[in-house]
Amino acid sequence: MRTEEIDVLVSEVGPRDGLQSVDRTMPTELKFRWVDALAGAGLREIEVGSFVSPKRLPQMADTGQVVAHARGIEGLNVLALVPNLRGAQDAVAAGAQALTMPISASRAHSLANIGKTPEEAIREVSRVAGFLASRDEPVSLEVGVSTAFGCTIQGPVPEDEVLEIARACAEAGADSVGLSDTTGSANPAQVRRMFTALRRELGERAGGAHLHNTRGQGLANVVAALDAGVRTLDSSQAGLGGCPYAPGASGNIVTEDLVYLLESMGLRTGVDLEALIEAREIIREGLPGEPLYGHVPDAGVHNGFVYAGSQEVTR
Amino acid sequence: MRTEEIDVLVSEVGPRDGLQSVDRTMPTELKFRWVDALAGAGLREIEVGSFVSPKRLPQMADTGQVVAHARGIEGLNVLALVPNLRGAQDAVAAGAQALTMPISASRAHSLANIGKTPEEAIREVSRVAGFLASRDEPVSLEVGVSTAFGCTIQGPVPEDEVLEIARACAEAGADSVGLSDTTGSANPAQVRRMFTALRRELGERAGGAHLHNTRGQGLANVVAALDAGVRTLDSSQAGLGGCPYAPGASGNIVTEDLVYLLESMGLRTGVDLEALIEAREIIREGLPGEPLYGHVPDAGVHNGFVYAGSQEVTR
Repeated sequence: MRTEEIDVLVSEVGPRDGLQSVDRTMPTELKFRWVDALAGAGLREIEVGSFVSPKRLPQMADTGQVVAHARGIEGLNVLALVPNLRGAQDAVAAGAQALTMPISASRAHSLANIGKTPEEAIREVSRVAGFLASRDEPVSLEVGVSTAFGCTIQGPVPEDEVLEIARACAEAGADSVGLSDTTGSANPAQVRRMFTALRRELGERAGGAHLHNTRGQGLANVVAALDAGVRTLDSSQAGLGGCPYAPGASGNIVTEDLVYLLESMGLRTGVDLEALIEAREIIREGLPGEPLYGHVPDAGVHNGFVYAGSQEVTR
Repeated sequence: MRTEEIDVLVSEVGPRDGLQSVDRTMPTELKFRWVDALAGAGLREIEVGSFVSPKRLPQMADTGQVVAHARGIEGLNVLALVPNLRGAQDAVAAGAQALTMPISASRAHSLANIGKTPEEAIREVSRVAGFLASRDEPVSLEVGVSTAFGCTIQGPVPEDEVLEIARACAEAGADSVGLSDTTGSANPAQVRRMFTALRRELGERAGGAHLHNTRGQGLANVVAALDAGVRTLDSSQAGLGGCPYAPGASGNIVTEDLVYLLESMGLRTGVDLEALIEAREIIREGLPGEPLYGHVPDAGVHNGFVYAGSQEVTR
């Protein structure tokens, strides 16, 4: 699978966004097996953990080990979340190939989430970009602008402020800047408008969409993002996770349902749905009783479903 | 609300499609209250029941009474499903203002569902249209082409056959012909393509979209339908219902989540979400223990949500 061409990159965030949102810790050995299974199902990029204080998020304390393990998987892009320079140094030391930094467009959310204003957070992006530039081996830096479509604390976030922050992050040295619907407030008209504007502003540096399904609108927003040219979409197996610091917000879009959507539309993901659905067993084993979301795992694919590129039946 | 302009007609099918899919019967008095509450929340059109044999669907035996009751609600378009001429006669006698007839594009589904081939079903459309034309008071006739996006029994349904059936129904005298994703097989690329073709073929007589959420793709398909110019969307409160004769298929799109989607996008529905969500209590009372679906009823609207047309904040 790994060498086939794909049309859309499904970036799996479950091992980071999912596992940091539950109040138990999945044993390291099971994280290894889960990452193996996700990559084995054909996912090309996995956000495997977060380099934050283990006091704050003990679920992520073994991220260095998970990165090192994931680096052993051929063809996988191993992504880690870092909040600051220190986290970036740890991530690079562990072997991460790409770093993602969250920057809140909402001042209130930024302070609540990382204790910094957006301006301070952008200065940290500069520091991390400088550090990465000083090294021989290339490590890419992605920024995700969170609360880009609204905030549970401050309410609407002005769209020009979101775009201004995205521009500032690109100028600070981020290789790509995506937009996150952290609080599940986005609607398709807004998603289309914002990603169109982002691409106009940043061109090739316009990043992917991180969408939530809090209000059942996740895949509707995916359709709008695709229309706006987005070709990288974050999702979480079984819909695990969300943002623990945005009260009332929960629910990443479900990787299983997203892959089905894309393949049905004729967009190749490289993912095998059956193998992907099997990987849910590892969550059941590692986090017994945790609710697992998704419609396709229950309903199965439809009669006549074919993977994108296989034939033209459903296209 | 009733006199305000709207951009999209949300056609509520719960009292028909929802109630015929559960194996209990909601008491007539509660059906009255539910229809009252739905109309009170601002819905302009409700499919209140089905004029079929009470032996086959005892849940629908009181449809005549429900139609008569609903006719007392000012400004409401009272729609009833009819399988044939006899049902149409009963529906008109009861006071229905619009009739909807299902025609399966899939031959296998048509035989399983109504015991007729598609050609026989189209002849029945002619008979019903002739009957309606012979009367003084206008009653409109809508046809919904079911299994238009695939069939659980026969698999893919050729798109040109679907369009051919739609054309034949319009020629037979249907005022509008819509497309139904009876089995939850549709994807947004297909929905966009099919409704674009339908409008090209039928112009003003191209009808609405009846979409299911079987695989979590319901609102994603709504976005595609809107793009293709569709302005009438069927949905069911709490996602009640689906097609009982298509094995494995279930789950109408949820009216609450649909209204939220449309209003968030700036498309006026005339529906008050709070009043709509309150109406769920009547289902709880009438069908205790029945699973109620929908994300917006649990999550609420987002901080900063405004109804379409109120202001520009989220648009």
